[in-house]
Amino acid sequence: MGASDELGGLDLARIRFVLVEPSHPGNIGAAARAMKTMGLARLSLIRPHQYPNAEATARASGADDVLAQAQVCEGLEEALAGCRLVLGTSARPRNLEWPTLTPRECAARVAQEQISGGEVAVLFGRERSGLTNAELERCHFRVHIPSNPEYSSLNLAAAVQILAYEMALVQPVGGAVAEPPEEEGEAVADPVEVERLFEHFQAALVDIDFLNPDNPRQLMRRLRRLFGRTRLLITEVNILRGILTAAQRQARLARGLE
Amino acid sequence: MGASDELGGLDLARIRFVLVEPSHPGNIGAAARAMKTMGLARLSLIRPHQYPNAEATARASGADDVLAQAQVCEGLEEALAGCRLVLGTSARPRNLEWPTLTPRECAARVAQEQISGGEVAVLFGRERSGLTNAELERCHFRVHIPSNPEYSSLNLAAAVQILAYEMALVQPVGGAVAEPPEEEGEAVADPVEVERLFEHFQAALVDIDFLNPDNPRQLMRRLRRLFGRTRLLITEVNILRGILTAAQRQARLARGLE
Repeated sequence: MGASDELGGLDLARIRFVLVEPSHPGNIGAAARAMKTMGLARLSLIRPHQYPNAEATARASGADDVLAQAQVCEGLEEALAGCRLVLGTSARPRNLEWPTLTPRECAARVAQEQISGGEVAVLFGRERSGLTNAELERCHFRVHIPSNPEYSSLNLAAAVQILAYEMALVQPVGGAVAEPPEEEGEAVADPVEVERLFEHFQAALVDIDFLNPDNPRQLMRRLRRLFGRTRLLITEVNILRGILTAAQRQARLARGLE
Repeated sequence: MGASDELGGLDLARIRFVLVEPSHPGNIGAAARAMKTMGLARLSLIRPHQYPNAEATARASGADDVLAQAQVCEGLEEALAGCRLVLGTSARPRNLEWPTLTPRECAARVAQEQISGGEVAVLFGRERSGLTNAELERCHFRVHIPSNPEYSSLNLAAAVQILAYEMALVQPVGGAVAEPPEEEGEAVADPVEVERLFEHFQAALVDIDFLNPDNPRQLMRRLRRLFGRTRLLITEVNILRGILTAAQRQARLARGLE
């Protein structure tokens, strides 16, 4: 899928998402789309109820390539072949029975795994009943998406979206984050220029009879506070000074000096 | 929706999600479901193409209460009434043209806002074309979901799911970083008042011959960007409008109208 400055930089080609017996073909397509938006491309389907299917293709939208390349499997063995780390999503909240990770912790664990070159699988259960205990026991960790205790019923593709999002964002262990370069003319103004802007403000506000020159303190303090907290750009200082100059010119015209 | 140990503890009742002209009713239902799984309940729909609708109800699944309580609005004014912080989702990646947040930064910003009791709105654009520039200009911040540069087409409900997930997880800003109490008149200005300020700016800049009324777009956009990111206080709006009025008075005097 190509590298991206926006995404974290895991090797997403070594992560597969496995849907176990999905019943609604629309969810398969939506899952493919959710994966592709985050740069993931390896989808496995264990005994899908209806597949291939026109609704799956429609919901995949532009991710039809992910769908077309999906591996259809008879069972877990086939889907997990070659995987060294297996993670199983679970609607049950964190408890002591089994090591349970949040999606964010899960992504960090995957990043850890990738140092040693391991393949990773994330299992998603059936829409109504999730993963069986036997399936969960094949997983090294459970992953639970924090949710509303009164309504924790995430749609299958929505769960895929959240896991894919966290995988895409996590930084590879040891990775550096580069800041995007500033555009031309979009640099933050120098403090000296900002100070000149305030001087210009004060002079112009006196000129247009808004500020009493004998008592400028309070008003100027408020303007400093307002513009001080924004980190003005060079272009913005220029615009504000242009406005002040135009107002001063009107004041001079009004006094018949031009 | 009740408190939860799993979720972060923001006041989710003071966050509304606004879908602008959604065309597919299924997406409306799926968005309601995505919200409810994360404890959010306030959904607004601006000019939905098909609503109410059986497919919306089907896809909402157990979140039919969120759907039933959804506010259907004629326009942005109505949907944003009372909101002090407006965030607009955008498919365009982070750049310097407009302050852009990731979903995680967005959630942190909302947590900050909630210290002072503000209402928050998150806008989601049309499935095909997103938010218009005019709509984005009403937002204090843009929110961009990091995605695959070769395929960034998140489904509408998937985008709602990710934003809701980040909102649900973020921790409220603790007492340690408490802001000083607001002084009299130090409250953040209502968006309607800020909008009037921009209208006043445009009229005044035309009056003082700084702005060509036939081509106000670029300059007004820059001013919106500048003042949009500062969260103007009521006193500051009043000062700026006072300055504009004083400048307009000089322009009238210069033309001999007073």
